[in-house]
Amino acid sequence: MADTLHLAADPVELTAALVDVPSVSGDEAHLADLVERALTGQTPLEVTRSGNAVLARTNLGRPSRVVLAGHLDTVPINDNLPSRLENGILHGCGAVDMKGGDAVMLHLAATVLEPRHDLTFVFYDCEEVEAVRNGLGRIERDLPEWLKADLAIVCEPSNGVIEAGCQGTMRIEVRTKGVRAHTARGWMGVNAIHAIGEPLRRLEAYEPRQVDIDGCLYREGLQAVKVGGGVAGNVVPDEAVLTVNHRFAPDRTPAQAEQHLREVFEGYDVTVTDMSPGALPGLGAPITGELVAAAGGTPVAKLGWTDVARFAALGMPAVNYGPGDPLLAHTQQENVPVQQIRDCADVLRRFLS
Amino acid sequence: MADTLHLAADPVELTAALVDVPSVSGDEAHLADLVERALTGQTPLEVTRSGNAVLARTNLGRPSRVVLAGHLDTVPINDNLPSRLENGILHGCGAVDMKGGDAVMLHLAATVLEPRHDLTFVFYDCEEVEAVRNGLGRIERDLPEWLKADLAIVCEPSNGVIEAGCQGTMRIEVRTKGVRAHTARGWMGVNAIHAIGEPLRRLEAYEPRQVDIDGCLYREGLQAVKVGGGVAGNVVPDEAVLTVNHRFAPDRTPAQAEQHLREVFEGYDVTVTDMSPGALPGLGAPITGELVAAAGGTPVAKLGWTDVARFAALGMPAVNYGPGDPLLAHTQQENVPVQQIRDCADVLRRFLS
Repeated sequence: MADTLHLAADPVELTAALVDVPSVSGDEAHLADLVERALTGQTPLEVTRSGNAVLARTNLGRPSRVVLAGHLDTVPINDNLPSRLENGILHGCGAVDMKGGDAVMLHLAATVLEPRHDLTFVFYDCEEVEAVRNGLGRIERDLPEWLKADLAIVCEPSNGVIEAGCQGTMRIEVRTKGVRAHTARGWMGVNAIHAIGEPLRRLEAYEPRQVDIDGCLYREGLQAVKVGGGVAGNVVPDEAVLTVNHRFAPDRTPAQAEQHLREVFEGYDVTVTDMSPGALPGLGAPITGELVAAAGGTPVAKLGWTDVARFAALGMPAVNYGPGDPLLAHTQQENVPVQQIRDCADVLRRFLS
Repeated sequence: MADTLHLAADPVELTAALVDVPSVSGDEAHLADLVERALTGQTPLEVTRSGNAVLARTNLGRPSRVVLAGHLDTVPINDNLPSRLENGILHGCGAVDMKGGDAVMLHLAATVLEPRHDLTFVFYDCEEVEAVRNGLGRIERDLPEWLKADLAIVCEPSNGVIEAGCQGTMRIEVRTKGVRAHTARGWMGVNAIHAIGEPLRRLEAYEPRQVDIDGCLYREGLQAVKVGGGVAGNVVPDEAVLTVNHRFAPDRTPAQAEQHLREVFEGYDVTVTDMSPGALPGLGAPITGELVAAAGGTPVAKLGWTDVARFAALGMPAVNYGPGDPLLAHTQQENVPVQQIRDCADVLRRFLS
């Protein structure tokens, strides 16, 4: 395991070094120490620490600022350490989600010494666990001035394509009520599980929207993710609960998405249990246009929810851009083509220099 | 708490004494000791013990034998002890299910000294818990000759009406399969919870049979008793399981009932998880006719499943006959009108003497 990170050398080697320092959510301290030590003393960076997060920024008086963010933590190790480089593919826990992106950020922090924009780098903790533990949320509360910028780039894996904005997500519970009875005299009761059939029918018949915003196509979704009910093997149940996850395009606010779900499940008891707003792609801003130009290709919609939405909520355009296939995230086989790491570093260097 | 049971005295006082000896399933030893001590030495009874069950029988060489059965255990005490007699109603845990019936049996054992039929009394344990612990099942395995008879009377509460036979019960699991996917890309998956909507629709539309056998009307039922499914809040689930309880009239064998359920849920993966056959009312047998005549009134169908079915499976007519309203069983308020205890004792004395 590395005890020093060599930021200015090869970003691929740096990715491998980061992968080889285990940093499962909650256990990022050692990796954060290494990152802090490597960034401290890099001219022209101001470095600070927040728990297991490390922040660094330039203060060059540029007219605009770009924040680049990446989480240091990974999902639990699954017999996939240490890293292994094979045929140009780097394998290992966190290779794709998202130590490749972290390596690109660290490499840029050490090598882009005269950036066109002031830069803020945020390496944070606990992204892979429940939202209340998310290090970026803590930084937003404790060090809000560190997150102010004109553009945010979250270096989560995006196959090296600019993913713009992100969809919102909302979870609701649809609850049916009945009357308990012994199943030997079932006609004396009202079966709440039978009653959940109609909401399921509506889910089956539901046709999700596809929404084009700034040329990005967002595909919405409405999926049951849990169903539960039942008292005992001989009792007509008096309650059933269906949990539904809605992914909604960023042209809708959470309030509008909730209103829509209340219409879909009209006549039923609906409770919102979880909600994260989407983020508009913000491709109209000139600074975003510069990034898109540097990356080449066409931006696409981000369908999953990422911390991009936190930055969008702070009022700046925010995109997702990083090496690796997001479909491999959280799998035992996660890996990243090393060429994507180099390409990402080159694109961002072009944009920032 | 009584340390001696006075069998020959008032069956109502005996019921109260039995109620006042707690005997939650598994903890019947003390009550079984008292019952064993009270029966031992009663002429002309042969007494034996099986775990926390007590058995007693006459061997008078009569041409026919009647077995009377009652369980000694109760559901957990629910702030409803000791017993309380108020306005001719005896309250307390087990009053209706089924220490009133036990008291009638004990009183008859001590006072019907010249019965027309040989008699077997079975006081058993663990009826209120899972079937594998049921004391009657153990007796069937260990002391099968003790259960042989020409008629079985299970003294479970029946409002003092002869309840003939009983319905069968079967539990099945209906399972749907799908394909997991992230809900952000829901179209890549197949939602197994959505797929459980169609079986629920069939349950909603199901019209249960009503079957007349020997003048007894059996009302069948088909009820979902449990539903479950779900992987995580952001995953399209790949499995859902619906548990359904079918109560079927005793004109159908378990195999026929299963075949029926497979037709109802045709196209779905169906697994039988639990089954107890019903019992035909057997009202055609002369000895049953004598009991019905002694009781007066018209027999009715037993809708719930009781240990009557175990005796029916041994090849004898079997009925349910005891004091108290079965709808009060297992409730905190369980109680029995004392007149029903006396009436039951009188009817059975008339039949047996």
